[in-house]
Amino acid sequence: MSNKIPTRIYLTEDEMPKSWYNLRAVMKNKPDPMLHPGTLQPVTAEDLAPVFCKGVIEQELNETSLHIPIPEDIQDFYRAYRPSPLIRAYYLERALGTPAHIYYKFEGTNTSGSHKLNSAGPQAYYAKKEGLKSLTTETGAGQWGTAMAMACAFYGLELIVYMVKISSQQKPYRKALIEAYGANLIPSPSDTTESGKKILAKDPKTGGSLGCAISEAIETAVKTDKCRYVLGSVLNHVLLHQTVIGQEAQIALEKFGVTPDIIIGCAGGGSNLGGLIAPFMGDKIEGRNEIRFIAVEPASCPSFTRGRYAYDFGDTAQTTPLIRMQTLGSGYIPSPNHAGGLRYHGMNSTLTKLFHDGLLEARSAAQTEVFDAAIQFMKTEGILPAPESSHAIKAAIDEANECKKTGQKKVILFGLSGTGFFDMTAFQSYHEKTMTDQIPTDADLERGFATIPNIPQNVQ
Amino acid sequence: MSNKIPTRIYLTEDEMPKSWYNLRAVMKNKPDPMLHPGTLQPVTAEDLAPVFCKGVIEQELNETSLHIPIPEDIQDFYRAYRPSPLIRAYYLERALGTPAHIYYKFEGTNTSGSHKLNSAGPQAYYAKKEGLKSLTTETGAGQWGTAMAMACAFYGLELIVYMVKISSQQKPYRKALIEAYGANLIPSPSDTTESGKKILAKDPKTGGSLGCAISEAIETAVKTDKCRYVLGSVLNHVLLHQTVIGQEAQIALEKFGVTPDIIIGCAGGGSNLGGLIAPFMGDKIEGRNEIRFIAVEPASCPSFTRGRYAYDFGDTAQTTPLIRMQTLGSGYIPSPNHAGGLRYHGMNSTLTKLFHDGLLEARSAAQTEVFDAAIQFMKTEGILPAPESSHAIKAAIDEANECKKTGQKKVILFGLSGTGFFDMTAFQSYHEKTMTDQIPTDADLERGFATIPNIPQNVQ
Repeated sequence: MSNKIPTRIYLTEDEMPKSWYNLRAVMKNKPDPMLHPGTLQPVTAEDLAPVFCKGVIEQELNETSLHIPIPEDIQDFYRAYRPSPLIRAYYLERALGTPAHIYYKFEGTNTSGSHKLNSAGPQAYYAKKEGLKSLTTETGAGQWGTAMAMACAFYGLELIVYMVKISSQQKPYRKALIEAYGANLIPSPSDTTESGKKILAKDPKTGGSLGCAISEAIETAVKTDKCRYVLGSVLNHVLLHQTVIGQEAQIALEKFGVTPDIIIGCAGGGSNLGGLIAPFMGDKIEGRNEIRFIAVEPASCPSFTRGRYAYDFGDTAQTTPLIRMQTLGSGYIPSPNHAGGLRYHGMNSTLTKLFHDGLLEARSAAQTEVFDAAIQFMKTEGILPAPESSHAIKAAIDEANECKKTGQKKVILFGLSGTGFFDMTAFQSYHEKTMTDQIPTDADLERGFATIPNIPQNVQ
Repeated sequence: MSNKIPTRIYLTEDEMPKSWYNLRAVMKNKPDPMLHPGTLQPVTAEDLAPVFCKGVIEQELNETSLHIPIPEDIQDFYRAYRPSPLIRAYYLERALGTPAHIYYKFEGTNTSGSHKLNSAGPQAYYAKKEGLKSLTTETGAGQWGTAMAMACAFYGLELIVYMVKISSQQKPYRKALIEAYGANLIPSPSDTTESGKKILAKDPKTGGSLGCAISEAIETAVKTDKCRYVLGSVLNHVLLHQTVIGQEAQIALEKFGVTPDIIIGCAGGGSNLGGLIAPFMGDKIEGRNEIRFIAVEPASCPSFTRGRYAYDFGDTAQTTPLIRMQTLGSGYIPSPNHAGGLRYHGMNSTLTKLFHDGLLEARSAAQTEVFDAAIQFMKTEGILPAPESSHAIKAAIDEANECKKTGQKKVILFGLSGTGFFDMTAFQSYHEKTMTDQIPTDADLERGFATIPNIPQNVQ
């Protein structure tokens, strides 16, 4: 609003991060290791080699190097769409009448519509470098599928995207965009894989889930020559790539001359939240700040707030290594709500650990109140937010309203992880008041929990 | 690609323009004046007052002030989403193997999806300042309708948007977005106005046109208390607001240390092209550069390349003042092609004058070759371009390929006016090879020309 204080800050390209920030290296209590589901021993690089690229396996298992250099080629890739802006929400603040100062890091200015490109680029780069010809992946709401399609077009790789069936039907234009980038899109579950056929045999009318789509993508990757699987969230190497968000935010906040009191991110598998908070959390662990970190998840898929802390599979067909995480059970199929994303049954292991160590708070928000927040945000700040990101907006507004009550002038930073251009059916149903909250009953959750494997939880 | 030369440059907020650049002030031959259709005399501010806000009327008629200060309030509005980046197309250049250097000014990072917000903000601001309660407008592809809905939400004004019927049917999500911002959207022609009823009586199944929608919007504005009409292109005050594009581009090019040889923009009514080229054209007129300026229009709506230079109405119902422009006739209804935008029958009077004085070149491009260019661009540069903007991409690629033949290392700047998130049906039909070029026959054009009023063309 003033001529003196800027509304948004972009770093120059030479200020952009040259390394990723590996939070696990500063954590006193490391997240529990991934286990081989047969031996229940920590997985090795060899165990993961049939599924993942070597480059990311190394990162997945690295708990000691704090700064992992970003290869020059990937820095070039990042420069094709970054830096992303850090924006002061002057107009939202004015509408709320809050003394709080609200900032958001906006990752939605690229065509994938979200932060997902930050990991899609590196994952495609390593695949190309290792001589692979193709990749497989899954996508739910479609941001990750779009990001991988873009990255594969850029690096000249073939890509098969298993898209959650209900999502491919609800979002034909998202499908068209992924196809325009040259990827082969298959609605999941499909009859192209054994795991897909099994799921279809049980429930021919299922709309699918991320867990199903992951099973199909892994199966195809393992069976195909010079092909590997890539995942857009949950795993630690994905969170690592996303730390460009937090590092850029940190530098930009310094330019604004402020330090945050609260940092908020939406959480599905955890990639956006983990990437945003990593360097700030590292500083907190080392005693350099007292920031409150808040994860916001949908009430319809509440792995933090109503899930169990257990070793569980990453996919429905139970083919992945076991990860100790907050989980609803790999068999949990969330309601086909409009949040589209944030529908994964489990949470990244590092964020899970931080949550249990009291370093990270979590709360859930119901769909309609999330859209209330989205509409207030878009009418004041202009930007059409993704339903996923609107969970963070909801919590930021709540915290700012709390400041209004107490008179505290807190600095709130939240992650605006993406845009809602492909979510207009959801905005339409909100507008027409046909949207419901679809919160699972305890019985719904119990059905999911029943699919968590019954293994000792202190195996390592 | 190099670490030394940046890929994109954002100005800081204090480098953003503080005034609009009024190109007509430096033109030796001014565009012909708007005429009152009854008296055939140049229109006065009073003539325009029932339709437009006073603030924009003053700008529309101002041919003498080169720099028109941007009110502080509008500078704040611009800071809510600007500056827009100037990007070096390294990856496209590499794919083309051209010695040319290609730059593009990208106006698609805001939610309206295009440059349209640059004029929507000021127009809503003046309406608010003058005590109006509501505005009416038309929209074709939907960018302008979205931009006005955003601006009216920001300034607290009501808005009725008459959306070309075929477009509202092809783009339900665009409609949903406009409604999410709180505007009242009416497919045009409608039975809410006399001009709409007349058009429907003639052809009940018509898909409508911008000309029809303008007639309806003006009629409603004139009949409603404390209401005026706003237009998103064609008029000189709209081009004036858009000069923030060209001014920002000029400063960013200086930071890149280059001067352009060729500047390219797509052209419908002319607002994006006019805004981009204005300050560069001013310098050319004053002998400070020898830049070639190229307008690119769709072969399906070729007002520059196949139109007539004549005084014509701005709308189908023939209620507006007469504007001397390149025109296809206000009764021309372009084929319902997928370019969506760029379907207006006439061209801005200033650009028309520059064209006739040999200062501006024009060419047309057919739909499928435009989408060829769009796909090449999105796979290399990442960004999903609007079909409209892809006309400029097509010409930029052609010029870069020409440089490849001649070995010349020209600097090409084009305007990437927006994104294609709401145009996925068009990308889908291109992908499925069902897209056709829909180029009008001479007979088609003659039917349009027959609607140009038969008046002396040297009346002023």
